[in-house]
Amino acid sequence: KTNIDCLSSQRLIRLPGLIDIHVHVREPGAPHKEDWSSCTAAALAGGVTTILAMPNTNPATVDLEAYQVTAKCAKAGARCDYGIYAGASNFNPQTVPSISRKVVALKMYLNDTFTTLKMDDMSVWMKHFEHWPKNVPICAHAEGVTTAAVILLAELFQRPLHICHVARKCEILVIRAAKERGLPITCEVCPHHLVLTKADLDNVGHGRGQVKPPLVDQEDQQALWDNMDIIDCFATDHAPHTVEEKSGEKPPPGFPGLETLLPLLLTAVNDGRLTIEDIVLRLHTNPRRIFNLPEQPDTYVEVDLDAKWTIPKAMPYTKSKWTPFAGIKVQGAIRRVVLRGEMVVIDGEVGASTVYDVGFFLKTWCGCEVAAPPSLTSPTK
Amino acid sequence: KTNIDCLSSQRLIRLPGLIDIHVHVREPGAPHKEDWSSCTAAALAGGVTTILAMPNTNPATVDLEAYQVTAKCAKAGARCDYGIYAGASNFNPQTVPSISRKVVALKMYLNDTFTTLKMDDMSVWMKHFEHWPKNVPICAHAEGVTTAAVILLAELFQRPLHICHVARKCEILVIRAAKERGLPITCEVCPHHLVLTKADLDNVGHGRGQVKPPLVDQEDQQALWDNMDIIDCFATDHAPHTVEEKSGEKPPPGFPGLETLLPLLLTAVNDGRLTIEDIVLRLHTNPRRIFNLPEQPDTYVEVDLDAKWTIPKAMPYTKSKWTPFAGIKVQGAIRRVVLRGEMVVIDGEVGASTVYDVGFFLKTWCGCEVAAPPSLTSPTK
Ligand SMILES: [Zn+2]
Ligand SMILES: [Zn+2]
Ligand SMILES: [Zn+2]
Ligand SMILES: [Zn+2]
Ligand SMILES: [Zn+2]
Ligand SMILES: [Zn+2]
Ligand SMILES: [Zn+2]
Ligand SMILES: [Zn+2]
Repeated sequence: KTNIDCLSSQRLIRLPGLIDIHVHVREPGAPHKEDWSSCTAAALAGGVTTILAMPNTNPATVDLEAYQVTAKCAKAGARCDYGIYAGASNFNPQTVPSISRKVVALKMYLNDTFTTLKMDDMSVWMKHFEHWPKNVPICAHAEGVTTAAVILLAELFQRPLHICHVARKCEILVIRAAKERGLPITCEVCPHHLVLTKADLDNVGHGRGQVKPPLVDQEDQQALWDNMDIIDCFATDHAPHTVEEKSGEKPPPGFPGLETLLPLLLTAVNDGRLTIEDIVLRLHTNPRRIFNLPEQPDTYVEVDLDAKWTIPKAMPYTKSKWTPFAGIKVQGAIRRVVLRGEMVVIDGEVGASTVYDVGFFLKTWCGCEVAAPPSLTSPTK
Repeated sequence: KTNIDCLSSQRLIRLPGLIDIHVHVREPGAPHKEDWSSCTAAALAGGVTTILAMPNTNPATVDLEAYQVTAKCAKAGARCDYGIYAGASNFNPQTVPSISRKVVALKMYLNDTFTTLKMDDMSVWMKHFEHWPKNVPICAHAEGVTTAAVILLAELFQRPLHICHVARKCEILVIRAAKERGLPITCEVCPHHLVLTKADLDNVGHGRGQVKPPLVDQEDQQALWDNMDIIDCFATDHAPHTVEEKSGEKPPPGFPGLETLLPLLLTAVNDGRLTIEDIVLRLHTNPRRIFNLPEQPDTYVEVDLDAKWTIPKAMPYTKSKWTPFAGIKVQGAIRRVVLRGEMVVIDGEVGASTVYDVGFFLKTWCGCEVAAPPSLTSPTK
């Protein structure tokens, strides 16, 4: 399905616009870490034409008022399409469903991480499962044993569930068993868990290397690769903090990831560990299906499979002026991104300003069939 | 079904021999805390004619060799019928099934407690679920979120599961939801969680009051009473330590409970919170059904529903010379216990010496219909 053009010695291919379902924009609340403009610039530079924005902002997206604050920031700053998550809290199981038609999903934080939205009591989780509409996804940050627990709730309440950033062997094995039993579970894995392990902490820095779920060991990482067939999505969990914060006394968890996503995955393609189809499935087709997202017409990403380069100390567009992948040699680069017919990236320069709110389109598209991916034709011929 | 005799002003009734499915005998390994003789004396004094003995002994009952050590202690010391649990460990998922026909169930410790058998990795739990035969119960120490996680494994591996000592609202609610969905889950609750709360710790002592799961708050306790209809069994989790150990610097978790079990429950009957049928169902009928236990012919417990007394500082037969229930006023006392036609308890005096190993009978009884409870006739007429 993917056209490969051989121009000079380059293998140029076109991918559909990528969808990153797990992005922390940081605005409202901490625009010094990232804002909608910088975040979506980083997205486009990374070949991502739609981001789904997590709700652990300030205010957290737990009700209509907070949603409107976020939506206003998004509309003002975004350079690519986006959807916004609602956040589950201890206090909103009965009320947050009122914004379910404006958002792409409900995010539940079931383990400690960088948020005020952590819910300790499983009784509250059950109330959310009871009240949130079944046709809008629930996504869970649920590590280890919690993965199995929340999958049980999905089974008991007879609804689909998406598991965020699977990182460990036990997690992927229980998800495999659940899928084999026919439960409607989907999951995502982050590039940093596929590429880095605990052993890289000496290099990355033990403070900067903090992330939730943490970098795991070789056995866990191998289990992710071994179970690639049941991994539905790749997602960055782009979680920018300033390099000063990450280098300080109590470094907050999280890595930037939007600009390195595709180069790292293309390198895996060049290494024979993934195919281009694996990438398109997990960053376009499955995200659209799971989150019921509209197709973006006239949208594509042109990549050069041959370009070899080394990831620098920091990537250009995110405000987070560091990357855990610094020094890694990659093969594969983004040459052009076209969003709805508009060339928004040319060789690393981002120029988009048009804004599309996927949440808005969702209402129009709701319930319709997901269209087949557009046929990919080469722009260079 | 229960005959009530009015002799003088006493209401004397007969119960079938009670089965306590959760007892820590402490022998082999720590006979100074309890041994088979003292433990089963306490059982009989409490109206319990069958105990199921937990595997966290020393050696722990994780293989045939350890099983034989325990079985020898049991045979030498036991004064009532018994069954022995196998213990799941990180190292025996493939091997422990070899003793599955000698034991009553497999015990899995999924949270920290007084044992070396704690298994951290859910991947190992899954291996046990895969290998342990489906017709022999699995019982799990699984608190909070872990309750939901292990119930998912039961569903994924399509087998029954028994949850030990349910103590919290979230646990009983998730068990209710699982039962309503038709999953073959059973559970037990301990008298100490029904009778005591955190608020009693000042009285009991914060050190002595340590138990796993801990004493919980009023809301959790109320949830247990509110969901009595889905509680399959009462069990003591009789976990004796010496009063010196319990009063020391690092008190180990656990309460003695065999001798106070029935008086506390009879008091709840007198208070109108339970019926005699509730007790028989949860300490005889359901334990027999869940663990496939044989009937004990000519076996009964005669209790006086009117006797009022106050629980003393320590009960007579356990070596654990203290009780968390000291000072509680109860109404209901054990007058006689008859085991297979032999009067083994008369007004608190224990004299039994015959030993029956339920594990042995199980092989004979395996697969047979569970007989109807024997009709109860009064011995005093
Ligand atoms: Zn997370
Ligand atoms: Zn694990
Ligand atoms: Zn995240
Ligand atoms: Zn498409
Ligand atoms: Zn336990
Ligand atoms: Zn709870
Ligand atoms: Zn126990
Ligand atoms: Zn019976």
